[in-house]
Amino acid sequence: MAEFPTIQLRVAEAAASCDAAKKILLSDLREREATANGGQAITVQDRITSRRGQAFAVSLAIRATEALNASTGGQGLDVSHPVQRAWRDANAVGRHISMNWDTVGTIFKADKKIALEEHFAIEQTVQDSAGVVPHLYWEELKYRLLDLHERRIREMDENGVELMILSLNAPTVQAIPDEKAAYELSRRANDYLADQIAKRPDRFKGFAALPMQSPELATRELERCVTELGFVGALVNGFSQSQRDGILYYDLPQFRPFWAAVQTLDVPFYLHPRNPLPAHAPIYDGHPWLLGPTWAFGQETAVHALRLMGSGLFDDYPDLKIILGHLGEGLPYSMWRVDNRNAWVETAPNYPAKKRIADYFHANFWLTTSGNFRTQTLVDAILEIGSDRILFSADWPFENVDHAARWFDSASISDNDRIKIGRTNAARLFKFEV
Amino acid sequence: MAEFPTIQLRVAEAAASCDAAKKILLSDLREREATANGGQAITVQDRITSRRGQAFAVSLAIRATEALNASTGGQGLDVSHPVQRAWRDANAVGRHISMNWDTVGTIFKADKKIALEEHFAIEQTVQDSAGVVPHLYWEELKYRLLDLHERRIREMDENGVELMILSLNAPTVQAIPDEKAAYELSRRANDYLADQIAKRPDRFKGFAALPMQSPELATRELERCVTELGFVGALVNGFSQSQRDGILYYDLPQFRPFWAAVQTLDVPFYLHPRNPLPAHAPIYDGHPWLLGPTWAFGQETAVHALRLMGSGLFDDYPDLKIILGHLGEGLPYSMWRVDNRNAWVETAPNYPAKKRIADYFHANFWLTTSGNFRTQTLVDAILEIGSDRILFSADWPFENVDHAARWFDSASISDNDRIKIGRTNAARLFKFEV
Amino acid sequence: MAEFPTIQLRVAEAAASCDAAKKILLSDLREREATANGGQAITVQDRITSRRGQAFAVSLAIRATEALNASTGGQGLDVSHPVQRAWRDANAVGRHISMNWDTVGTIFKADKKIALEEHFAIEQTVQDSAGVVPHLYWEELKYRLLDLHERRIREMDENGVELMILSLNAPTVQAIPDEKAAYELSRRANDYLADQIAKRPDRFKGFAALPMQSPELATRELERCVTELGFVGALVNGFSQSQRDGILYYDLPQFRPFWAAVQTLDVPFYLHPRNPLPAHAPIYDGHPWLLGPTWAFGQETAVHALRLMGSGLFDDYPDLKIILGHLGEGLPYSMWRVDNRNAWVETAPNYPAKKRIADYFHANFWLTTSGNFRTQTLVDAILEIGSDRILFSADWPFENVDHAARWFDSASISDNDRIKIGRTNAARLFKFEV
Amino acid sequence: MAEFPTIQLRVAEAAASCDAAKKILLSDLREREATANGGQAITVQDRITSRRGQAFAVSLAIRATEALNASTGGQGLDVSHPVQRAWRDANAVGRHISMNWDTVGTIFKADKKIALEEHFAIEQTVQDSAGVVPHLYWEELKYRLLDLHERRIREMDENGVELMILSLNAPTVQAIPDEKAAYELSRRANDYLADQIAKRPDRFKGFAALPMQSPELATRELERCVTELGFVGALVNGFSQSQRDGILYYDLPQFRPFWAAVQTLDVPFYLHPRNPLPAHAPIYDGHPWLLGPTWAFGQETAVHALRLMGSGLFDDYPDLKIILGHLGEGLPYSMWRVDNRNAWVETAPNYPAKKRIADYFHANFWLTTSGNFRTQTLVDAILEIGSDRILFSADWPFENVDHAARWFDSASISDNDRIKIGRTNAARLFKFEV
Repeated sequence: MAEFPTIQLRVAEAAASCDAAKKILLSDLREREATANGGQAITVQDRITSRRGQAFAVSLAIRATEALNASTGGQGLDVSHPVQRAWRDANAVGRHISMNWDTVGTIFKADKKIALEEHFAIEQTVQDSAGVVPHLYWEELKYRLLDLHERRIREMDENGVELMILSLNAPTVQAIPDEKAAYELSRRANDYLADQIAKRPDRFKGFAALPMQSPELATRELERCVTELGFVGALVNGFSQSQRDGILYYDLPQFRPFWAAVQTLDVPFYLHPRNPLPAHAPIYDGHPWLLGPTWAFGQETAVHALRLMGSGLFDDYPDLKIILGHLGEGLPYSMWRVDNRNAWVETAPNYPAKKRIADYFHANFWLTTSGNFRTQTLVDAILEIGSDRILFSADWPFENVDHAARWFDSASISDNDRIKIGRTNAARLFKFEV
Repeated sequence: MAEFPTIQLRVAEAAASCDAAKKILLSDLREREATANGGQAITVQDRITSRRGQAFAVSLAIRATEALNASTGGQGLDVSHPVQRAWRDANAVGRHISMNWDTVGTIFKADKKIALEEHFAIEQTVQDSAGVVPHLYWEELKYRLLDLHERRIREMDENGVELMILSLNAPTVQAIPDEKAAYELSRRANDYLADQIAKRPDRFKGFAALPMQSPELATRELERCVTELGFVGALVNGFSQSQRDGILYYDLPQFRPFWAAVQTLDVPFYLHPRNPLPAHAPIYDGHPWLLGPTWAFGQETAVHALRLMGSGLFDDYPDLKIILGHLGEGLPYSMWRVDNRNAWVETAPNYPAKKRIADYFHANFWLTTSGNFRTQTLVDAILEIGSDRILFSADWPFENVDHAARWFDSASISDNDRIKIGRTNAARLFKFEV
Repeated sequence: MAEFPTIQLRVAEAAASCDAAKKILLSDLREREATANGGQAITVQDRITSRRGQAFAVSLAIRATEALNASTGGQGLDVSHPVQRAWRDANAVGRHISMNWDTVGTIFKADKKIALEEHFAIEQTVQDSAGVVPHLYWEELKYRLLDLHERRIREMDENGVELMILSLNAPTVQAIPDEKAAYELSRRANDYLADQIAKRPDRFKGFAALPMQSPELATRELERCVTELGFVGALVNGFSQSQRDGILYYDLPQFRPFWAAVQTLDVPFYLHPRNPLPAHAPIYDGHPWLLGPTWAFGQETAVHALRLMGSGLFDDYPDLKIILGHLGEGLPYSMWRVDNRNAWVETAPNYPAKKRIADYFHANFWLTTSGNFRTQTLVDAILEIGSDRILFSADWPFENVDHAARWFDSASISDNDRIKIGRTNAARLFKFEV
Repeated sequence: MAEFPTIQLRVAEAAASCDAAKKILLSDLREREATANGGQAITVQDRITSRRGQAFAVSLAIRATEALNASTGGQGLDVSHPVQRAWRDANAVGRHISMNWDTVGTIFKADKKIALEEHFAIEQTVQDSAGVVPHLYWEELKYRLLDLHERRIREMDENGVELMILSLNAPTVQAIPDEKAAYELSRRANDYLADQIAKRPDRFKGFAALPMQSPELATRELERCVTELGFVGALVNGFSQSQRDGILYYDLPQFRPFWAAVQTLDVPFYLHPRNPLPAHAPIYDGHPWLLGPTWAFGQETAVHALRLMGSGLFDDYPDLKIILGHLGEGLPYSMWRVDNRNAWVETAPNYPAKKRIADYFHANFWLTTSGNFRTQTLVDAILEIGSDRILFSADWPFENVDHAARWFDSASISDNDRIKIGRTNAARLFKFEV
């Protein structure tokens, strides 16, 4: 068999590959040795170069075993065959030390991101997320929601997330019609979160859950969270259901004192999605797949945000900072049309606010990438609101941190914007020291 | 006064400008004369060059009068002052013969567009559009809707629109609960449209209005319109209200025979927006400004389109061609998320269709630019669905043709795509001879 | 003639237009009056609304006269015909008070731009620019170059340019082989510029011209310009021709002390284009049209910038700030390829610098829009280097300020980025108070 | 040790992961079994779903072993430890059957691309490429250039490339001053290529090498290659060096008959880069790293293309089809400036051609992605020339096919455009049956 020309070719290729791999590794080692001997520091650039060299050597080794593998015929399929074993080892090494070409190309970009639509649950709230995934995945999701210090930290480490700002799962507090009960749950969740953050203040910050059913209690709890617990803002899951008042959107007049407090505390308010009540959106009847993140979340949250903008809220409190997830819940794509439909009609728009809707969107809103890992959409958002107002987020545990990070770390935007969106925009918005 | 240095400078500048203008015009005339004397044809390029030269000359003349104007002091404000007069004349000429720099730069691009979300009304339907604009503008809108051969043709001529595919205003037929009445109105409107097209077959084509309250009657009317009246497709204003069946979206099973007929006739179906019934979308309560083109149209139509995609309709009738206006009613921005929310969950989606939603969107849908004259949005649409599936439209008379055309003719896309989106995509979709 | 139905229709339309125009203006006046009577301030938004209403009224008036004009037949061509006169007046008004729809839509965006590749000449240098334009245009260009306080200020006012940073025309100082003569000319030009700035410190700042033939003299003159004359940086026209040393690019070792001084002074250095010497670029032989801004400028300046980056200059002086015009002289489009050609070859690049070329480009370079008023190109630049490092400029008088401003004010980028690129990036880079 | 809570947690997680993996695989198998038992075909969609399920199961298995691995302490580092072994196996499987999440997401996109800047060498020409890579890599590159049926086909198979259009390496024929020798070498290379294509007509097509030193011989050889050898066009490596005539660019008058033949044969002409002669581009002196693909290739080829456009060639032969590699050698980014520098100067450009340069670029040019795997650049190219005129290519063996394919298959453009750029544009341009 060794006499077939094809086999000879493959063996030759394998040998050549091994040889080259050896040379590259040795040459690199020699260079590093010289640097070290010369008393010079090994720079970041040296490290990248070494890793790239190693990655290429590994890829040559893989190619060598593949070449041989292909030439072993049926025997090669036996997992105990030495060629198989060599191939498995080479692959494993390639994977283990993150040596593959793609990954190494981006290793230093991935560092030190801040993520801010990242959720947890407590025992009392975890069931609220049960319907989000098929039964088969519920155990996994539940584990992810309740976990804070094991898997979550590992995901962060593996994907270059330095800091997560944590928030309670949805809809939880917002779906409790009794305002006292909502208040109690908020306090319990916020206290729990504060305790957990205290264990890892280097990796976690907190958003307050708020009983918006009562603007007064919401205000009181926000003040407590910010001034006593050290939270950096609030995250609220869309409209609140109130026993007394029905469905509450936060453009309603009774919320103005709450917003006054938010402005005074000078912390961002994250408007997070929830589903509409079934009776309020019959358009989804017969199509439950359209609920949740697929579509209904976006519509619900976009309209809530538009209501805030049209209501004049930002004329009264021009320093409010509202965060929307999912690259803006569809708003950037259609924002021009909001202000410019029937543009030949020159009368003032029929809402109480004083400016164009886009003016508030550009001045009072920030968008995160949570759950919308689409470069085209990110670029459109950049061209509508500017890269200063976009913030990396994953939406863990409903979305994977690695999906978010791998996409973001190589998305086709400028590296300067990647640093801003990945980290420094958030640091500035939340006044973190970088 | 003539002795002030500033005045002297201005007079000098004016004189220089006049002189240069004269030279340019003369030099251009001599060139053209030489061409003509030499028996050569005057090319399109010659014409552009001449016009650009003239434009520059005019701009110099304007500058000359402005320089003088500024130096006349208070007297210059008198409209009978000779400098004022000269300035007015220069400006008027500049405007009249479309000589200004911007316009001339694009004159040949603007030619020969096809527009396909362009509406008309008949006396029985015109009131349906009364609420769209403030009272002050209703007379204008009404005139625009009823007019076909005067203002409309002029708008087309002035803005390089060779052909309009006309459709009845909204919601009209779709809002008539009695199916017979809806059928009768459809027939009347379609007959009227056919008559009008017959007067200008070079400038107009027609979309059928259809009584979707009855799939059978809708099918019958569509067949009549296509085979007898020569219409090129249908435009339907969202869901239909049926006395018998309530709200009808067209993913419902009873519509499959209708879609079979659409596929057999091989004509596109334009899914046009309408507002939700107030009881069905309380999210807009207190915010009527969000209805219509501002926001509710998009949500209503996007969800209708998603229902069609998720229902498996395009598995059964894979050759259906659906057109959406307004650059896709928000779908392109969020399409990735529709298919990829919770991407770590590897189960099949919970809808009847066999493929990803995006697969149908890419294969069965076309988008028009109607009412969404935003380059960022257009670019995002191109990067989601490709320039082969985007078609110019204005949404006359609700939007201005000149707003649409001026934007489109200079939007920052490639000129090759401009030709496709402006004209040849539509020609191919509707099988027009170009 | 008044009995023709077409004429009647047109007269009716004209009457309707006039009527609507009147109503809009009156209704607007009433609103403003109410505001004023109520003691409230008239807001910017009020002003926009009023202007838009007026613009629409004017457009109706124009339409009215056009309708009539078209109905006057041959008589209407007579310039003294009253309809002609009315049409001319309506057009003139439309133009005069900048009432047209497009302009008004952007009036407030245009304000307060800073432009920084804006040139002037003195008598000794003006001839250097003589070959740039055809003979016919030389008088105009010469006037523009020598003028500082008349036409230039008017262009700035009309186009929302608050501040110009002025620089001497090209190649001038760089093309003088004798270093003393180059030094003398630099001093003269810089002194003249300082005098002119002193007359309008609110509108002008200065870049130093530098005799780079001698690094020592260049350093000395830069220090004088910054510390004594208050200049904000330097603008140098590409390589210098030295009697003694031949062609000098600034990556050469003898320039390191100069760069040390630039870093110490902490002012930006604008690397402006010039043409290669004919003997050095025979590729353009027979194609003189490719010289200058058409192509050769870009190649010359891009390579000069690459030489700086590859030489390790920015390892030694990491705080240097280099500005390139024309959206980066082509670099952003090809920057990835510079670092990634033959990417399977894992050896270090064969230049002295320690990092990827892109790392320096992202950290040490800023780009201006001078002479490259192309949105596609601007967007690509944003996606390569980020909007923080792009700065508005026109390249007056070689390019028109109005061409630059009209393009930039409506380019399809976010308004937040427009403010940064238009003004605040420059303010931060040059440490102006905003 | 089993009693540490952390270890317990990890074991629990591992167990849960294994369990979930098992369930997913079994559930999937049952579904497929049911499909098969029911006599239905297994669809592409079924296959994707299965693979995604498998991929997730594998990822769970990997996670399980990682969890255990982390808990084994120092012992786990021993390669013979069972946990290590399990981890290596899980990883190897994940890699082997392409099961990882990212890859599976795109497997069907990657199919059936056509690549057209793909080079080979013969013994006489292979040394021309020796300087392209460092010594260490030369053996690898040489092997890649000479190989046609082994590694090359494997690269194509692994990366979804159905067809390569092959061309001789550079500069080879163009660098042979003697026209007879150049002719002989062309014939030999073309004959060899024809023989190789005959062995795999399903995977290879050919571009002719041409002795452009003699327009007559080049014409004769092109005719032979197209009509006798079945080649689909020509690829020429930039200017030719002629003993008699010096440096020859193909806008020179003596090439018009050659171009007439190209138009008559109706085949594309690929203008491939080469380096300038050192004496002709002293700007690179001291910076050899700027030669070749890093920068000089682009400048050389862009100017050659501009010369063709400005010379009027395409006025005479309007059906010529020119292909440029590397996403257009920088031209799209700067094309607007080529036509619009000094736009206030309204005279005709000073070149012989009749139209704007961009008009020829849009009508006569196609661009490939060879060696420029940058999404930002691709998007800019799409927005300048349109997606109909962009073609996938790798530039093998100088660039890796997997680098090209992995980038292209997931670049953020529309899937519809991906199909066109990947395959159907080329099929239409070369009149292949698809």
